[in-house]
Amino acid sequence: MDIKKSLTLVKIGGNIIDDANELQHFLADFSKIEGYKVLIHGGGKSATKMAKSIGLVPQMVDGRRITDAAMLEVVVMIYAGQINKDIVAQLQANNTNAIGFSGADGNLIQSEKRNHPSIDYGFVGDVQKVNTPLLQTLITNEITPVFCAITHDKKGQLLNTNADTIASELAIALSEVFDVTLNYCFEKPGVLTDVDDDNSVIQQINSALYSKLKQEGAIHSGMIPKLDNCFNSLSKGVQKIKIGHHKMLQNANAICTSIQL
Amino acid sequence: MDIKKSLTLVKIGGNIIDDANELQHFLADFSKIEGYKVLIHGGGKSATKMAKSIGLVPQMVDGRRITDAAMLEVVVMIYAGQINKDIVAQLQANNTNAIGFSGADGNLIQSEKRNHPSIDYGFVGDVQKVNTPLLQTLITNEITPVFCAITHDKKGQLLNTNADTIASELAIALSEVFDVTLNYCFEKPGVLTDVDDDNSVIQQINSALYSKLKQEGAIHSGMIPKLDNCFNSLSKGVQKIKIGHHKMLQNANAICTSIQL
Repeated sequence: MDIKKSLTLVKIGGNIIDDANELQHFLADFSKIEGYKVLIHGGGKSATKMAKSIGLVPQMVDGRRITDAAMLEVVVMIYAGQINKDIVAQLQANNTNAIGFSGADGNLIQSEKRNHPSIDYGFVGDVQKVNTPLLQTLITNEITPVFCAITHDKKGQLLNTNADTIASELAIALSEVFDVTLNYCFEKPGVLTDVDDDNSVIQQINSALYSKLKQEGAIHSGMIPKLDNCFNSLSKGVQKIKIGHHKMLQNANAICTSIQL
Repeated sequence: MDIKKSLTLVKIGGNIIDDANELQHFLADFSKIEGYKVLIHGGGKSATKMAKSIGLVPQMVDGRRITDAAMLEVVVMIYAGQINKDIVAQLQANNTNAIGFSGADGNLIQSEKRNHPSIDYGFVGDVQKVNTPLLQTLITNEITPVFCAITHDKKGQLLNTNADTIASELAIALSEVFDVTLNYCFEKPGVLTDVDDDNSVIQQINSALYSKLKQEGAIHSGMIPKLDNCFNSLSKGVQKIKIGHHKMLQNANAICTSIQL
């Protein structure tokens, strides 16, 4: 029987990206993860800053940001250019052999322009397909893929895509060939029952407890789609998911939220 | 005896990049090249345009552009982000399995910050080392690498690097394992004896004819470092170099300049 090798996926959000010092510490910790690993990064504030400085006005519909052609140019240059290459160069300095990718590179993540009945989100893509064989080849050749949240439609169009979704779709696809742990790193120590109290971390959640906590109202609003997404990934083969501050990557005793079916 | 497989390297300059229609035609032609191939692209005018629109003033010393920290950010986002990912997405639409790279990715091109006795060029890198084994692995896995002119120093610093030099350094390194033809594509049909007459293409040059044409003054100014660079690449193992309009890639009878030792 083939035993699957372990693979650690880490998704970092904008708050780490925006803090150069924090990012440097995170990348040093990430580099120390043993075995195969993949990084997915969000955008941070620099795309909005750049958009403003060249005179773009954010387009919002029903409180959702719309990615028009001009905004797409900005997110591509900031996410796939500035942030991705800066991260790759820093990982190389940490002796991690990283390669930065958008979904267009190697057709690694193909998506479809979102077709919503009432809102035109613009150049936003929903993931359709991950090129697992090529990713497997790269990873087993000791490459550490670093993904930004840009995909493509295989018809020449780049598309802005949610970074959390990319992380979970990559985790699901790669769980066919690896034993995958997915880590969502953000500024909090985990899923909190009281958002203002960092000591209220729920350290273990399974689907039964999740249902109970939702009913009680202890988990609500933005955390619900995030956790739904996690349980979906677990049901599709991802072994384990952790949510918390990135110090959990190096310290097995650090408090965080572990999610299992 | 191992027979080396053929590899075609193509370098395109800013004039193709700046013309969306021309770029699209070029990429369709490039995709039709049979066998292993690599693309290297320059920058075009969009970096200068972006720099101006965010209020940067080009820094020049002795007529040479200086890449200060702010300008480096711009060239990274435009070259490695916008241009590189747009090219990759278009190649994918042409069924060429391209991956876009800076030199930092996979430590593919390591360089050293230029240390000039009198001019501080800023964040400009001179190529030191190409990661030939990884490039060979990628290419023989049917990947078409697409390089922008950004490298790194392996200490976390990205560096702006001349695209012609990247093309020739990649050609030299890859000639260890492939039978390499390097094509420099630009807006002219080849090396001209009269810059205003497109019919004055020198169709074949070897080092003896080159010396003679230089002495006669038929080849002068900017073409001399370009051709010196070509003869250097040929002396280091590159099989053949062609200079001309990109139509030479698909039409073996198209007039262009062929350079051989």
